[in-house]
Amino acid sequence: MPGLKIEAIGRYLPSRIVTAADIADQLGVTEKWIVDRTGVAERRWVTDETPLDMALAATKDALVKASIDAEDIDLIVYASATPHQLIPDTSTLLQRELGLGESGTKTFSLHSTCLSFMTALDVASAFIATGRHQRILIASAEIGSAGIDKSEPESGALLGDMSTAVLVTADVEGTSSLRSLIQRTYGIGADLCRMEIGYARHPLRVPTTPQDYMFHMDGPEVFRMAHRLFPPIIEEAVANADMTLDDIDLVVPHQASLGAIRSIQRSLGIDDDRVVINIDKYGNCVAASLPGALYEAVEDGRLQRGNTVLLAGTGAGLSMAAAVLTW
Amino acid sequence: MPGLKIEAIGRYLPSRIVTAADIADQLGVTEKWIVDRTGVAERRWVTDETPLDMALAATKDALVKASIDAEDIDLIVYASATPHQLIPDTSTLLQRELGLGESGTKTFSLHSTCLSFMTALDVASAFIATGRHQRILIASAEIGSAGIDKSEPESGALLGDMSTAVLVTADVEGTSSLRSLIQRTYGIGADLCRMEIGYARHPLRVPTTPQDYMFHMDGPEVFRMAHRLFPPIIEEAVANADMTLDDIDLVVPHQASLGAIRSIQRSLGIDDDRVVINIDKYGNCVAASLPGALYEAVEDGRLQRGNTVLLAGTGAGLSMAAAVLTW
Repeated sequence: MPGLKIEAIGRYLPSRIVTAADIADQLGVTEKWIVDRTGVAERRWVTDETPLDMALAATKDALVKASIDAEDIDLIVYASATPHQLIPDTSTLLQRELGLGESGTKTFSLHSTCLSFMTALDVASAFIATGRHQRILIASAEIGSAGIDKSEPESGALLGDMSTAVLVTADVEGTSSLRSLIQRTYGIGADLCRMEIGYARHPLRVPTTPQDYMFHMDGPEVFRMAHRLFPPIIEEAVANADMTLDDIDLVVPHQASLGAIRSIQRSLGIDDDRVVINIDKYGNCVAASLPGALYEAVEDGRLQRGNTVLLAGTGAGLSMAAAVLTW
Repeated sequence: MPGLKIEAIGRYLPSRIVTAADIADQLGVTEKWIVDRTGVAERRWVTDETPLDMALAATKDALVKASIDAEDIDLIVYASATPHQLIPDTSTLLQRELGLGESGTKTFSLHSTCLSFMTALDVASAFIATGRHQRILIASAEIGSAGIDKSEPESGALLGDMSTAVLVTADVEGTSSLRSLIQRTYGIGADLCRMEIGYARHPLRVPTTPQDYMFHMDGPEVFRMAHRLFPPIIEEAVANADMTLDDIDLVVPHQASLGAIRSIQRSLGIDDDRVVINIDKYGNCVAASLPGALYEAVEDGRLQRGNTVLLAGTGAGLSMAAAVLTW
């Protein structure tokens, strides 16, 4: 069965930079509180960009980096918590904007909140292993800023907007591979991160309030659950790759919060210089965070072909995932 | 690589029956117009059921039919256009309600509107073929009734509510299999079926109207596109299974509309008695329609182990899918 290679990553960043100082007053806290509590000195927030605008821009960036055309993609997966519109699903709109509207190229959307990219990578690897698809686009566009609850300074300060586009292919050279991937969900934590709008609380069925459209998080309890359950999952993923943590060249975590990343990393004994952090500049960008950090590691030259990279993250659910790749 | 077997299907139907006569006045048409135009004499609409209530009831039905426990499931996929709530995704809430909240059982959601079940079947088959999962729950709960636009009598009369739960396993006896599956999307038809609420048109970003939460459809143009593009996809799926249409024992279509089903079927030369129709009783139940028709075929004894069954459907996107299974 062919291995999997991440061929290229594209990114789109809104141009509007919002600093901790810019939002401290509206969140009712100080600039120092924001930076100490979340590690987010600044983040990007959209002005009038839509998820589709952002996904398209990131995809074009990825296509240029891979030197391929949109026609070379045989599956488009939109992996995000924030759809452009509910129907049709965003993947079809992205297909049309890429000029593939008459191509028949298969598309669908997938959602596991902050782990949507990891889930899509899992699905992509199974499709590639079975030969069903050869080149898969995983696009994630996140506008977390739209759902900020200003009465919750921790989550309000945490969220940033970003889009990423990851091109995944069968590895013909036999050098790159997905060596292991584990994803686990603990529904006992389902209320810890939530946005309640949906078909149980739908404005045409029951009265809704702006709060229903906002993201709510019990940060301390998420931290406790992750601290208890996440390190063994990471260790298991590394063991499944027939490795130890010492074999990992680089750790690319979901940028949940600086404290959460440091806590998990230190409990595993991983030193700071092997961990990619960009939450200080961009905040927690939901499903785009992890591929967005991977993007930076590639662009900066920190991640080279042949390296062993550990991807790891937590998400609403509460879900946790870890994967080991030979880059 | 192991084959795939649909082990059991569960269903939940809201108890509230809504006849064509009941809704003719509010849609501004006659009972006869509704039945002639859509083929839907009656449909079920929820009263206060939520997507989670419905998905849980259908899943319990499937577990009883398969004589297994929830603990025997190793992946939960919520495949639907109507989420219970936006975050966390509905699969995690279903996991918790099934008593699996501390199990770690992997879960995620997937969405390709009416084809969500077909997409999930595609993903499930790849996971089973690679040995990554052994038993997968595909749950679809649809409350299309919440988004009905009474000024559009065709789509308003078409939609019904239903939930299904399909248990997919590796086939250890070597008798059942997924022989082929094709899914294609034509984004040129993305505006033909739409519900515009989302992050491009979000109530905390821009003023929204009730119309944004309603389903809109250009029925005649969907019909034309499907008539042109869908039959060759079905023929290709059958050919990929090394079969001809004569080898198909039973056709289980997505219950898009009676006219659409009959048109495609007749253009392929498939006689009426090989086609499962239940749109007259339940309407178009989005992603639950196709597995809901499959449920009836199994319950009625029309579909027996060893039979060859063709699943086929269209969805917003515009997307089209066809699959051949040895049941």
